[in-house]
Amino acid sequence: MSYNTFGHLFRVTTWGESHGPALGATVDGCPPGIEISEEFIQVFLDRRRPGQSKMTTQRQEPDRVKILSGTFEGRTTGTPIQLMIENTDQRSKDYGEIARQFRPGHADLAYHQKYGIRDYRGGGRSSARETAARVAAGGVAQAVLKALVPGLRITGYMVQMGVKQISRERFDRDEILRNPFFIPDAAVVDEWADYLEAVRKNQNSVGAMIEVVAEGCPPGLGAPIYAKMDSDLAAAMMSINAVKAVEIGEGMAAAGLTGAENADEIRMGPSGPVYETNHAGGILGGITTGQPIVLRFAVKPTSSILTPRRSIDVAGNEVEVITKGRHDPCVGIRAVPVAEAMMACVILDHLLLDRGQTGGVRGRIG
Amino acid sequence: MSYNTFGHLFRVTTWGESHGPALGATVDGCPPGIEISEEFIQVFLDRRRPGQSKMTTQRQEPDRVKILSGTFEGRTTGTPIQLMIENTDQRSKDYGEIARQFRPGHADLAYHQKYGIRDYRGGGRSSARETAARVAAGGVAQAVLKALVPGLRITGYMVQMGVKQISRERFDRDEILRNPFFIPDAAVVDEWADYLEAVRKNQNSVGAMIEVVAEGCPPGLGAPIYAKMDSDLAAAMMSINAVKAVEIGEGMAAAGLTGAENADEIRMGPSGPVYETNHAGGILGGITTGQPIVLRFAVKPTSSILTPRRSIDVAGNEVEVITKGRHDPCVGIRAVPVAEAMMACVILDHLLLDRGQTGGVRGRIG
Amino acid sequence: MSYNTFGHLFRVTTWGESHGPALGATVDGCPPGIEISEEFIQVFLDRRRPGQSKMTTQRQEPDRVKILSGTFEGRTTGTPIQLMIENTDQRSKDYGEIARQFRPGHADLAYHQKYGIRDYRGGGRSSARETAARVAAGGVAQAVLKALVPGLRITGYMVQMGVKQISRERFDRDEILRNPFFIPDAAVVDEWADYLEAVRKNQNSVGAMIEVVAEGCPPGLGAPIYAKMDSDLAAAMMSINAVKAVEIGEGMAAAGLTGAENADEIRMGPSGPVYETNHAGGILGGITTGQPIVLRFAVKPTSSILTPRRSIDVAGNEVEVITKGRHDPCVGIRAVPVAEAMMACVILDHLLLDRGQTGGVRGRIG
Amino acid sequence: MSYNTFGHLFRVTTWGESHGPALGATVDGCPPGIEISEEFIQVFLDRRRPGQSKMTTQRQEPDRVKILSGTFEGRTTGTPIQLMIENTDQRSKDYGEIARQFRPGHADLAYHQKYGIRDYRGGGRSSARETAARVAAGGVAQAVLKALVPGLRITGYMVQMGVKQISRERFDRDEILRNPFFIPDAAVVDEWADYLEAVRKNQNSVGAMIEVVAEGCPPGLGAPIYAKMDSDLAAAMMSINAVKAVEIGEGMAAAGLTGAENADEIRMGPSGPVYETNHAGGILGGITTGQPIVLRFAVKPTSSILTPRRSIDVAGNEVEVITKGRHDPCVGIRAVPVAEAMMACVILDHLLLDRGQTGGVRGRIG
Repeated sequence: MSYNTFGHLFRVTTWGESHGPALGATVDGCPPGIEISEEFIQVFLDRRRPGQSKMTTQRQEPDRVKILSGTFEGRTTGTPIQLMIENTDQRSKDYGEIARQFRPGHADLAYHQKYGIRDYRGGGRSSARETAARVAAGGVAQAVLKALVPGLRITGYMVQMGVKQISRERFDRDEILRNPFFIPDAAVVDEWADYLEAVRKNQNSVGAMIEVVAEGCPPGLGAPIYAKMDSDLAAAMMSINAVKAVEIGEGMAAAGLTGAENADEIRMGPSGPVYETNHAGGILGGITTGQPIVLRFAVKPTSSILTPRRSIDVAGNEVEVITKGRHDPCVGIRAVPVAEAMMACVILDHLLLDRGQTGGVRGRIG
Repeated sequence: MSYNTFGHLFRVTTWGESHGPALGATVDGCPPGIEISEEFIQVFLDRRRPGQSKMTTQRQEPDRVKILSGTFEGRTTGTPIQLMIENTDQRSKDYGEIARQFRPGHADLAYHQKYGIRDYRGGGRSSARETAARVAAGGVAQAVLKALVPGLRITGYMVQMGVKQISRERFDRDEILRNPFFIPDAAVVDEWADYLEAVRKNQNSVGAMIEVVAEGCPPGLGAPIYAKMDSDLAAAMMSINAVKAVEIGEGMAAAGLTGAENADEIRMGPSGPVYETNHAGGILGGITTGQPIVLRFAVKPTSSILTPRRSIDVAGNEVEVITKGRHDPCVGIRAVPVAEAMMACVILDHLLLDRGQTGGVRGRIG
Repeated sequence: MSYNTFGHLFRVTTWGESHGPALGATVDGCPPGIEISEEFIQVFLDRRRPGQSKMTTQRQEPDRVKILSGTFEGRTTGTPIQLMIENTDQRSKDYGEIARQFRPGHADLAYHQKYGIRDYRGGGRSSARETAARVAAGGVAQAVLKALVPGLRITGYMVQMGVKQISRERFDRDEILRNPFFIPDAAVVDEWADYLEAVRKNQNSVGAMIEVVAEGCPPGLGAPIYAKMDSDLAAAMMSINAVKAVEIGEGMAAAGLTGAENADEIRMGPSGPVYETNHAGGILGGITTGQPIVLRFAVKPTSSILTPRRSIDVAGNEVEVITKGRHDPCVGIRAVPVAEAMMACVILDHLLLDRGQTGGVRGRIG
Repeated sequence: MSYNTFGHLFRVTTWGESHGPALGATVDGCPPGIEISEEFIQVFLDRRRPGQSKMTTQRQEPDRVKILSGTFEGRTTGTPIQLMIENTDQRSKDYGEIARQFRPGHADLAYHQKYGIRDYRGGGRSSARETAARVAAGGVAQAVLKALVPGLRITGYMVQMGVKQISRERFDRDEILRNPFFIPDAAVVDEWADYLEAVRKNQNSVGAMIEVVAEGCPPGLGAPIYAKMDSDLAAAMMSINAVKAVEIGEGMAAAGLTGAENADEIRMGPSGPVYETNHAGGILGGITTGQPIVLRFAVKPTSSILTPRRSIDVAGNEVEVITKGRHDPCVGIRAVPVAEAMMACVILDHLLLDRGQTGGVRGRIG
């Protein structure tokens, strides 16, 4: 079965193909009475919109979101919200080759083998274009979180692109939206730009690592044992195209630490428990601790490159594939707003779940 | 809400606390007519059983599984299978301190904050003891897979423990079950043993990295977009106690690669498509390719150590916590059979899902 | 949480309000490779379309369905199918009164109390207009069933309208689509027409009873214990606006029977077991027997009538409500194609579920 | 797939066969901090226990419930509650005939056809014995409802048994627990007893109709469109063994009413809206109105009778089946506590769902 829904109570079902008439998200379980507008959601979509710089695909799409249901007089009604984005730039062209060939690194062959049929136009359903629908749904989640958890702030940014890394010392949040890479380090922007341009000229692509942080998330969110906050976040990030790894807090590095090093010691603060450190990345036993949730994930390099790669076609003939067309030399860049959207959806979902089970009451200290 | 179920069609619900009368798993959606026995499942439980060496907790538990329902005359009937493991070694002792104190690195405080009440005996529900139920359920999955996918082989092993790593050159599968670390490298067993003993004597603990490989998994498994095979595997591994990171194929390293390096080229083999390499780790677009599924995850060091750590108690007093009792200096060791069990459940679940939607038919090549 | 999805593997999520820009259904889990077209689905929509006779609301809507995703070159791809129906006849008018008053028998007050906000235009989400989306989804299910279970035939018809009943002796399937009531009894059409016209002139409305039969449904469908075929059918029918009762086979009459009367005796036929009678209505233990599934449900009279009824407004003032506008004097009539659609979805869903768990294999006799 | 779980947030998974070592229920999603004990749950189990009078099966079972997990110091912890009931009276006998024959009216043939294998001992999983697990789970729900909705009272009783009916005029709630039929009419107890005894002597059985009423249920519960309160209640009741019909409020009779008759007029009471009548049975648009929820369902006559019925065996031979053993001449009697348990679970489930989505806030009047 095809599972195009995520979430437990705040449920998002995305639909649509890269080159179909439209794509979108059906958002069910949104709380009622929340202020919402197409403009509010559009802000998030604009951040991931392609064609904004030579760093991303030149495909020109306004990606205008339309709300078709679920709101009334500017507020959510608690009924399903249908978000539609029309595809306006599906250049009609001859797909002859791509229709028969399987592009290495893509899902072409996997889809063919599983379904026996596939919409080969621009990768169809497996296109990263599907993430536009996630970002729109994330906009709804952000609107709800803004109302229910005013202090919450979700911030995503790149920390690595191919061989390039940012400097944690120079971390500057305000810089993130000022450059096309979503990096918090003004000093390396030009260097990264030259590097990526060289990669692109070289008919190649590179991978990336993104970090997403949620500050101001209340403690107590997460549904052990099998819908732990970290478990759901890992699934959400891994479901984004090209993602190959997810880590929380110390992540992979935890394998090399000792218990004494890794323990986040606790002391009593004026308004409750305070952790001295955050090796855990804000999650213990699958439940948020109230510390910042810190998550990183790796995105593989764009598989669509002009460098010829060997493959086969549906007839079983061996062929050489060159993926022409408009592709991001680093898909990781646009994964940043997508990851923020996914995190917003997961946190809201667990906020509603927790309210459902515990009533949102918290155990007292002192 | 507390989510203690995982799986879509093959659904496993685990229940039980560390020091309650029993724990177990309710397995629903198991196909009928499959040969199964307590002995078959016991083999897997024995692999994770504690008290087998000084490398793991000295808690002595036979961990005998009983099948209470769902089978008849040695075969599954398609009805829910209840697997129960009685707790026989819950030493009754004074929990006075632990009852009021929150152990750093553990879920104690998180559970208290979320639920306002917790079974503090041995960590209650958040104890790694819960994984015994997963291993039992995994035994059922292995029995079904044995019947439905004879060629499938799932193998887990440690590749790192603290500062120690294995040598890929000396990889020897047969060695894995010969040593207490589940490592495929005979040459380092003594060295790892001395290292871990030193860590333990030093009242400390270490983390670990485990690799799990599934060979012979058919292509076409995985339910895009939000129940991708890698997405479900990531969630499954991240739900295991103390796991902080999961990666597939190149994983984190993919961030540093170029598209030309990362592409798995395809050629036509005698019995179908063959991939030249496996950077993807056997999964593309969330669907299995027929190549080995390769997954790694990091386990943080045991939080229960004799080294005093600062924390607070329920009254808000600052305290020093020393976690006495019987603890694994490296919880990662026993995570190996648990991870194999989780992978078996996820693969079977997707086999059933795929059969449900596509009928298990595969698109032809040539 | 608002649950706008039904189905286990074949999942339908409907969205949209009576007077919004559009409504529709997101169909996920549809098998791939199935021939489908807007024309095929339109046939079912046309059957429930309003404005076809004075027996139903005069609201004029073409109810044209558009497929926005999930198909390629006339076949399903296994990805979500988005079905959209634009609302073209939402007469803009002053809703002043209805905006503040709660219509008796409607969900107005219930929605207000639950959500604190409601789209009062034409009943918003609680309008029977939502069923257009179900019928469109049912069209997809019918297309799949046509391919997977060629012999299956689902037929709905009215058996009672207010004080009028059909004669079982004169049952004539071909007549069903020839009259505006979907009744299989030509002899009473004029009588029913006069009766309903009198009811309408009398500013009143009437209830109805509908029967739906599925012939050629294979045995073995239904997922005990809590997704029994009859259990899922009951939920599906009860979810249709204004439905107050559902019965299978003997239904309510079973309370008055003896075991000897009610037993469906079995003998061996040429191609397998044959039941002598069908008191069970084709379902035993929640599993289909291969006999016709026979289901009946009661629809309450339209609550929107011109006869004044006492109610209150949002300020708590007592008021007299007269529901003007275009309303069916008997909503039961258009419930017929809706019920057929729901049954098609439920049967297909269980066909896929059964294939997932048992592989669709059947136990042999002899 | 076999679906042995019901509920959205308060999830109950039952397991076990009639003649296995034990059966039970895994209750997940129970709110934390609720006072609970085996004694509290036992009270409900004792009401459905067999062997209490010659009106029900003579099978002697103490049906003692054990809580194996999910509670600590007399309170729920928010973790899964495992309820186990050991089978103590599975008379070992020769099942030779029943093992090969399919009992008419039972699920024997359906299970054989679907699964290809079945536990024929006492009907295995399809035995009404499964309902003991539901009653235990219902006891947990009752404990939670007692704490969260003190005013709620759920009452079930028989209104018809075969040709016998109660008199509404003589309705006396206190009488319900005083007689073996759970009827609120003292005047007919002896008459019903003689009637049932005659039926039994006549080697026959009879059907029954049960009514269940929930008073004090808050308004606003129910999740439109596809988890409406009436939709979920219908599914819950239809999932009980032998149930063939479910109706809410006017139910089937609604088909014969006019809109003017059926409208429940509303006026303003001191503490909020008051409905003049309750034709709706406490549910409008799938949402509770605050009026009593009124539900009725029909149970078919016991299929196990001593009167010979024609059937076939696994070899396809035609045979005559006489179902010996200990059977209720009217299974409807013990369906009363089962139905109360199901309603308690559904109401609690929706209370948690509503709290999750709307926060349980209610729209104001005035």
